[in-house]
Amino acid sequence: MPDQPPADRSVFYVSDGTGITAETFGHSLLSQFEGIRLREIRLPFTDSPEKAREAVNRIRQQGEIDGVRPIVFSTLVNPEISRELRDMPAMCIDLFANFVEPLENEFGVRSTHRIGRSHTATDSGQYQRRIEAINFSLAHDDGQSNTGLEKADVILVGVSRCGKTPTSLYLAMQHGIKAANYPLIPEDFDRGRLPEVLYRHRSKLFGLSIAPDRLAEVRFERRPNSRYASIENCRAEVGAAEAMMRREGIRWLSSTTKSIEEIAATVLQELELR
Amino acid sequence: MPDQPPADRSVFYVSDGTGITAETFGHSLLSQFEGIRLREIRLPFTDSPEKAREAVNRIRQQGEIDGVRPIVFSTLVNPEISRELRDMPAMCIDLFANFVEPLENEFGVRSTHRIGRSHTATDSGQYQRRIEAINFSLAHDDGQSNTGLEKADVILVGVSRCGKTPTSLYLAMQHGIKAANYPLIPEDFDRGRLPEVLYRHRSKLFGLSIAPDRLAEVRFERRPNSRYASIENCRAEVGAAEAMMRREGIRWLSSTTKSIEEIAATVLQELELR
Repeated sequence: MPDQPPADRSVFYVSDGTGITAETFGHSLLSQFEGIRLREIRLPFTDSPEKAREAVNRIRQQGEIDGVRPIVFSTLVNPEISRELRDMPAMCIDLFANFVEPLENEFGVRSTHRIGRSHTATDSGQYQRRIEAINFSLAHDDGQSNTGLEKADVILVGVSRCGKTPTSLYLAMQHGIKAANYPLIPEDFDRGRLPEVLYRHRSKLFGLSIAPDRLAEVRFERRPNSRYASIENCRAEVGAAEAMMRREGIRWLSSTTKSIEEIAATVLQELELR
Repeated sequence: MPDQPPADRSVFYVSDGTGITAETFGHSLLSQFEGIRLREIRLPFTDSPEKAREAVNRIRQQGEIDGVRPIVFSTLVNPEISRELRDMPAMCIDLFANFVEPLENEFGVRSTHRIGRSHTATDSGQYQRRIEAINFSLAHDDGQSNTGLEKADVILVGVSRCGKTPTSLYLAMQHGIKAANYPLIPEDFDRGRLPEVLYRHRSKLFGLSIAPDRLAEVRFERRPNSRYASIENCRAEVGAAEAMMRREGIRWLSSTTKSIEEIAATVLQELELR
């Protein structure tokens, strides 16, 4: 586990489920503040009044240690459980309290107040699709298999180490998208053609590129002082790959300064636009 | 792309970045309402007033088609951009507006109002750690390699197809945790011992189990009518694996009704408790 650096403030994520919603939201909001060092503590599965009281104790103690009240992001849907957090010495941001009632009015139905509804395996069709997508993406990583490529939702192409594998896995894991990926290698550039199997799946192709100096860094970590990692070779491969993608009319983006999430959101947007 | 079923309401996720926060939060909140069929539309990278106006047009049109106003979850931090969404015919849930000011008061500093701060590659140390963790988990999937196992943060063990691979990849992708996984196979049960290499990493072991009938279903999809997938064999393997984990003092959970996220949150909680 990565060590936590020294902190100015403690932030708790309290949830009756995994805590993913509270944490995602908290990160987003806190990323708007610079120069504050945060200690983050997850308290997932807080699904009974007893566990809520334990959470309150933990939060109170931490506040005493810190000498300043903690920030608490909570997504507790059961009023009996969330009530326990009401009077603790912390700044509480209750994500549901503010929005459930307006939505009840909007839909004209009462919410279920059922705990742990998010990030579960309850919608088993959707869940099954995600697991299948992960298996598909693993089996079709790095051009490993051409079998079943017609079932792919997208096929990422690009030079070795430009970000295809993490992006494919992310698309599968988070969105249930069957994402294959296929490397573009020097032999393809010599022939001046994409790998042959890709021509019949052209509409599914999406390209990733990367700045040559960044690529050289990434490859150096893998194979130091190799021709593969040399800046000259990276420059040549990236140039040839971009020229090929332009020539073949493949949409592509540069992954250099983008996170997996940003690349995936862009690919998804393009897929939906089709 | 999975087809969208017929819908009663349209839900938009509008963000200046990936839209992950808006979508995660929206899913969570909407999972509290049953029986309402939703059409979900992402509008990521809405990072200029022009794009915000395009978004408003899109939302207005959809509302006219639906005959009922859409729900909009937005995480726009720039006031100039979010202003564009103010008067549109939709129910707007602005996630930041409600919470940024109280946090500014709490910290005694102004927020940056900088767009696209979440889910970026800007914190490159943390980001690099995630990419390394993904590579590590892929290289150490299914007991593929014993090299570098001492660098693992956790080693998941369990019978084939009990959920080790998706959980390992999720831990790496979302949390930057180097998660290896190692299968427990009939040969291990015959010997009555864990794979030898695992003994020296005992403190990192975490077990997954699964109900035999669910395991038989999952394995059937992979190898129909095999001995591997038969209920008798699944029952024997699961029984032997659980007995072994108990004997060796390995903490474990049953993945049968749990999502990847729930398994990962539990593993994480256990790791942090150590």
